[in-house]
Amino acid sequence: MAVLREYPVSEIMNLHIFGRQGRQKQPLPLFFNGSGIEMTVTGSELWIELEADCDHLEPWVAYEINGALMSRQMILPGIQSICVFRSLDPAEAKTVRFYRELQAVSEDERCRLLIRSVKTDGEFLPPPKYERRLEFIGDSITSGEGTYGCDMDTVWVAMYMSASVNFATMTANALHADYRMISQGGWGVYCGWDNDVRHNLPSVYEKVCGLADGPENAAIGAADPYEFSDAVDAVIVNLGTNDNSAFNTPAFTDPVTGIAHRQKRDPEGHFVKEDIRKVEEAVIGFLKMIRKHNPGAHIVWTYGMLGYEMTLPLSRAVSEYSSITGDKNVAFLNLPNTTPGTHGAHMHPGPKAHEKAAEVLTDYLRQVLEM
Amino acid sequence: MAVLREYPVSEIMNLHIFGRQGRQKQPLPLFFNGSGIEMTVTGSELWIELEADCDHLEPWVAYEINGALMSRQMILPGIQSICVFRSLDPAEAKTVRFYRELQAVSEDERCRLLIRSVKTDGEFLPPPKYERRLEFIGDSITSGEGTYGCDMDTVWVAMYMSASVNFATMTANALHADYRMISQGGWGVYCGWDNDVRHNLPSVYEKVCGLADGPENAAIGAADPYEFSDAVDAVIVNLGTNDNSAFNTPAFTDPVTGIAHRQKRDPEGHFVKEDIRKVEEAVIGFLKMIRKHNPGAHIVWTYGMLGYEMTLPLSRAVSEYSSITGDKNVAFLNLPNTTPGTHGAHMHPGPKAHEKAAEVLTDYLRQVLEM
Amino acid sequence: MAVLREYPVSEIMNLHIFGRQGRQKQPLPLFFNGSGIEMTVTGSELWIELEADCDHLEPWVAYEINGALMSRQMILPGIQSICVFRSLDPAEAKTVRFYRELQAVSEDERCRLLIRSVKTDGEFLPPPKYERRLEFIGDSITSGEGTYGCDMDTVWVAMYMSASVNFATMTANALHADYRMISQGGWGVYCGWDNDVRHNLPSVYEKVCGLADGPENAAIGAADPYEFSDAVDAVIVNLGTNDNSAFNTPAFTDPVTGIAHRQKRDPEGHFVKEDIRKVEEAVIGFLKMIRKHNPGAHIVWTYGMLGYEMTLPLSRAVSEYSSITGDKNVAFLNLPNTTPGTHGAHMHPGPKAHEKAAEVLTDYLRQVLEM
Amino acid sequence: MAVLREYPVSEIMNLHIFGRQGRQKQPLPLFFNGSGIEMTVTGSELWIELEADCDHLEPWVAYEINGALMSRQMILPGIQSICVFRSLDPAEAKTVRFYRELQAVSEDERCRLLIRSVKTDGEFLPPPKYERRLEFIGDSITSGEGTYGCDMDTVWVAMYMSASVNFATMTANALHADYRMISQGGWGVYCGWDNDVRHNLPSVYEKVCGLADGPENAAIGAADPYEFSDAVDAVIVNLGTNDNSAFNTPAFTDPVTGIAHRQKRDPEGHFVKEDIRKVEEAVIGFLKMIRKHNPGAHIVWTYGMLGYEMTLPLSRAVSEYSSITGDKNVAFLNLPNTTPGTHGAHMHPGPKAHEKAAEVLTDYLRQVLEM
Repeated sequence: MAVLREYPVSEIMNLHIFGRQGRQKQPLPLFFNGSGIEMTVTGSELWIELEADCDHLEPWVAYEINGALMSRQMILPGIQSICVFRSLDPAEAKTVRFYRELQAVSEDERCRLLIRSVKTDGEFLPPPKYERRLEFIGDSITSGEGTYGCDMDTVWVAMYMSASVNFATMTANALHADYRMISQGGWGVYCGWDNDVRHNLPSVYEKVCGLADGPENAAIGAADPYEFSDAVDAVIVNLGTNDNSAFNTPAFTDPVTGIAHRQKRDPEGHFVKEDIRKVEEAVIGFLKMIRKHNPGAHIVWTYGMLGYEMTLPLSRAVSEYSSITGDKNVAFLNLPNTTPGTHGAHMHPGPKAHEKAAEVLTDYLRQVLEM
Repeated sequence: MAVLREYPVSEIMNLHIFGRQGRQKQPLPLFFNGSGIEMTVTGSELWIELEADCDHLEPWVAYEINGALMSRQMILPGIQSICVFRSLDPAEAKTVRFYRELQAVSEDERCRLLIRSVKTDGEFLPPPKYERRLEFIGDSITSGEGTYGCDMDTVWVAMYMSASVNFATMTANALHADYRMISQGGWGVYCGWDNDVRHNLPSVYEKVCGLADGPENAAIGAADPYEFSDAVDAVIVNLGTNDNSAFNTPAFTDPVTGIAHRQKRDPEGHFVKEDIRKVEEAVIGFLKMIRKHNPGAHIVWTYGMLGYEMTLPLSRAVSEYSSITGDKNVAFLNLPNTTPGTHGAHMHPGPKAHEKAAEVLTDYLRQVLEM
Repeated sequence: MAVLREYPVSEIMNLHIFGRQGRQKQPLPLFFNGSGIEMTVTGSELWIELEADCDHLEPWVAYEINGALMSRQMILPGIQSICVFRSLDPAEAKTVRFYRELQAVSEDERCRLLIRSVKTDGEFLPPPKYERRLEFIGDSITSGEGTYGCDMDTVWVAMYMSASVNFATMTANALHADYRMISQGGWGVYCGWDNDVRHNLPSVYEKVCGLADGPENAAIGAADPYEFSDAVDAVIVNLGTNDNSAFNTPAFTDPVTGIAHRQKRDPEGHFVKEDIRKVEEAVIGFLKMIRKHNPGAHIVWTYGMLGYEMTLPLSRAVSEYSSITGDKNVAFLNLPNTTPGTHGAHMHPGPKAHEKAAEVLTDYLRQVLEM
Repeated sequence: MAVLREYPVSEIMNLHIFGRQGRQKQPLPLFFNGSGIEMTVTGSELWIELEADCDHLEPWVAYEINGALMSRQMILPGIQSICVFRSLDPAEAKTVRFYRELQAVSEDERCRLLIRSVKTDGEFLPPPKYERRLEFIGDSITSGEGTYGCDMDTVWVAMYMSASVNFATMTANALHADYRMISQGGWGVYCGWDNDVRHNLPSVYEKVCGLADGPENAAIGAADPYEFSDAVDAVIVNLGTNDNSAFNTPAFTDPVTGIAHRQKRDPEGHFVKEDIRKVEEAVIGFLKMIRKHNPGAHIVWTYGMLGYEMTLPLSRAVSEYSSITGDKNVAFLNLPNTTPGTHGAHMHPGPKAHEKAAEVLTDYLRQVLEM
């Protein structure tokens, strides 16, 4: 019988913590899908102790062993240990990646997931090294919404989101790059799908996890400024899809100000100029913010996996930002639209659509980053 | 908050229990990979209560919602409730399939998995109906060995086996057929890969689960005669791969009789005639046994996913069985070999190899069964 | 033996002439790849009589029967009859498409291909009807350069170009749309790959075939104004790749004016502002020209099959055109870059790269044209 | 202008003549699909002079340059020169393969195709070397019937057959193996699809081209004994499909003997024993004949691309042959059936079906031949 030793996260030397993280390491909060820990261990057995809470959005997790997806499961409130493996050859080194599947949660203040410790009878060897680091910023597409579930499923719940089947992680894996992700379903660069102007990524980009509200999340560092201390080689933004939807949905009235917001189309169906201009200005502003925090990174604004209508306004704003600032290390790229037959749940991109997008993006980054 | 009601398995009217089953329904033992329960339910929440035990081989499980794989996880000893879903639209009908991933276990007497009850706030509606029923009989290929895991993984453990990625279940799903499976890694029709003559499927075919030994398994019906009460349309055997390996491995000495068994090759490397004849006779005998219990079924002996060397002896034995008995409703079919790049763990067929085999077998059965 | 009757092109009622055509119908010049004739005929036998000339660029042709590519061959100078089919069931209707594979030729004044007549023992039935019509404008990609040939082939010759394997014709076929194409390898919207400012598509767009020079081409109508009489539903431009290359190549000195032209990069490798502006202005001017002749068409500027570097200047120019003119029926779309392993000859997109681009473009047009 | 020199076939030192050939080399008859010449040449231009004749079945040809299919065309009666390439870089070496697309013809005594000479301004360099040599024996599948043409095409004509899209040539190319082919649509190992007992491959296997009748074919060596002088590593037989069809078609009355032949089914639809035995005996006899002429070759009987019903009789006969003769270097292998959506013309396997079969066969041969 294996004699397990428990290692608090903060005490493991050879631990690769990935994804967008704050200062707190013990216990280690996983705020975003695709945040987690990676380690190369000997030993026959390995457990990860979690602390979790939620109301209706359970923080699903997944883990991979030697790069192969092994398990994916719902985590319910409480402290619990997940057995990652047992009965393996103690002498052999295994690389384990354990990560959150559920996006950062802005609708369920109780939702949180923390890693307390790793228990094993093995040794921690140096984890894989990554030459490149990427940052992904997005909406439901980057949250992997619909990558699990039947194409007839329409209820919006935690289990349909993932980092395990996701163009962002597929791209990072194909390039053998470290990465961090920040995304939120329904949000845009200027406003949410429903014209809610509070639901824009720039408003939360500079905090560790500005999406996770409430005192408990604050206590674990969600509201802290994000430090951008690990330089990334490229920032991949995938926003605009919800800004597009806002032109098709009713006005949103701000509960605080009482002001109604609505992105409008003219009688012929085209975007009203001053409304689309709001999106463009938001793009320009967000690019300035991204550049400020990532001075050496290539920035590419990607778009198209759920329709191409915003291609011109988005690319125009990227051009305008480049002209205004003289920043040439910025680009625009269409990713292929989800075609009939490649949808997952919620009419979102399914696994094949994510694979196609990852193929285009991987090829793009390989050229830009000269890999 | 949902008010859940607990339904013991035996009391659920609208429950589809699938896979090879004995008489015991409460709690319901799941002996084989691909054994489980299916139900169409309303309600916001659903839990399945399990009772499990094991030494080193943990009974992994998986579940699908509306046909999409949602979760796969290790089950450890004890009584536990798995939350299958929460927070779904209570009015909407969901079809849930919950099943065992791990093959029947012959090396760990403690290993067992039973479903005690389903807890939900919904109603059980009539589950899907299946026009056709199939039986699969096999070895590690049918146990889905290597369908999870990295192609460098070589340790033999529970987590690499599955029913969720498996040519047998893929075929059944493609034909919308009910099915039952009996398989055992390393076993053959005459002997195991290591010449162990006790490791042949015919010896366990007539019991509910002749693979699960010990008094505890006996108590839940494993050693009972299997009743073959639900007629199948086709029996798909996939055996011979381990009988082939036996010609390459050292002798096995029966611990009881002290007799050494070894399948031999002649100096040129060909099978020694009397040894390959043992395999042929085992095939003939097993076909008689299968026919006895499945009088109306089409029987097809499939082979090839891990090499073609036994094609002639196996097909010759099928022909001889047909000649001897006059039974014409029997056939032989090569399934495509696993090619480099499509291996999973343990040098076994990976997901793509199972997909290719399922494509050939599905096409075959569609024609034979005139679907 | 079939008794054949000869029908001059101009006398065939039920003939679908496709591709960019001038007024001359007898004999019918085929100036562009993808120009040809289509007919639905009974009869056992059918011949097409051609008149051809060339110096070093032979006008290859291809033909399809009932939508399947049947033959592709080199045409040498002289008058000759191509037997399209023989010995078919006389009563059965066959649809034949016969077309030029070689792009319009600007380097070989002798190069020309004309259809004189069709000989058959059958009747001409009404040819297929097309609900939609598309126009494609492009460079070597649209000329199908490299769609035939080995990926090591680097000589620039006629046989590597095609309409038979081409994202433009694939798209038209997938949408069951009629089409016309105008393209020229090495040319751009502002200048050619070698900075030759005469090599821009706008300069030839308003003539039937401004690419085919010399008195003999003039005599068959190449220099006539193109009439744009058949309205198209969409214009798909695929230009910018050679304008990009010009930034990497030496200056071109105009042999007439003696002026040297060179698109330049700054020391950091970025496009010099006034040089990239020339491209943008050329885009804007060309869009005005396209709109003038295609008042109701959706115009989409596609780009990316051989690199993405011009995405921002091109899309910015499209936006600027839209702002200046108020024309909203215009768009920009990246097509996926050719990845390693999908190149054809000359480091150009091969068959798989064209298929991927056609998939994205087909999906795009299906949505925009609400098909 | 290139100055061409004409080289009669028999005078070219560095010429690789492939496919089943007799003694006559000048002019060189191409009796079978997949027969032709290969050469590596410098020079700007290359022509091949042909001599052809036919009544209703025109001997189509195809050619590849550096491994890429470049042209495919109908050849009509007369002497003619095909220009293979022009205007290429004279210094660069090009490898040309030129071959017949049409199967050997048993219904049109006039049909013949001969290569008289090659004209070029270049030099003949040593052609590619092949380590392995394969022989293919088959029916319409090996004749590539339906690999060109629309899936609605049902007339039986020359243009639908090929060696350019064919599981046999795909396999040889994938293994970089030289090959020879002998096949005939509608023929079997015992009888043709229509019970014509004269239509069996064994009856023509020992002649150069026993399929091409008449004095003119005799004059060019068709009726000569085939010399089997180049040893092959493997013989791949693909027969049985037409023997199967014979059980579903009316009797054939031999026009000479007046005897009626019909393969019969019993009232339950199974093969009548003495009739299927005729097929088995034909298999055994043919294997003896193949072995006699190919003493060192692996022989594999493949079957299944158009249905699996003959799997047991064919494999049983292969086993019986092996038992009788002690020949162990013989095998049976199912190739995957053509599934809906992968048919070509005439309900025969289309390009994708040939690709799938080639993948299985290539993998098989790679293992057996230890490549």
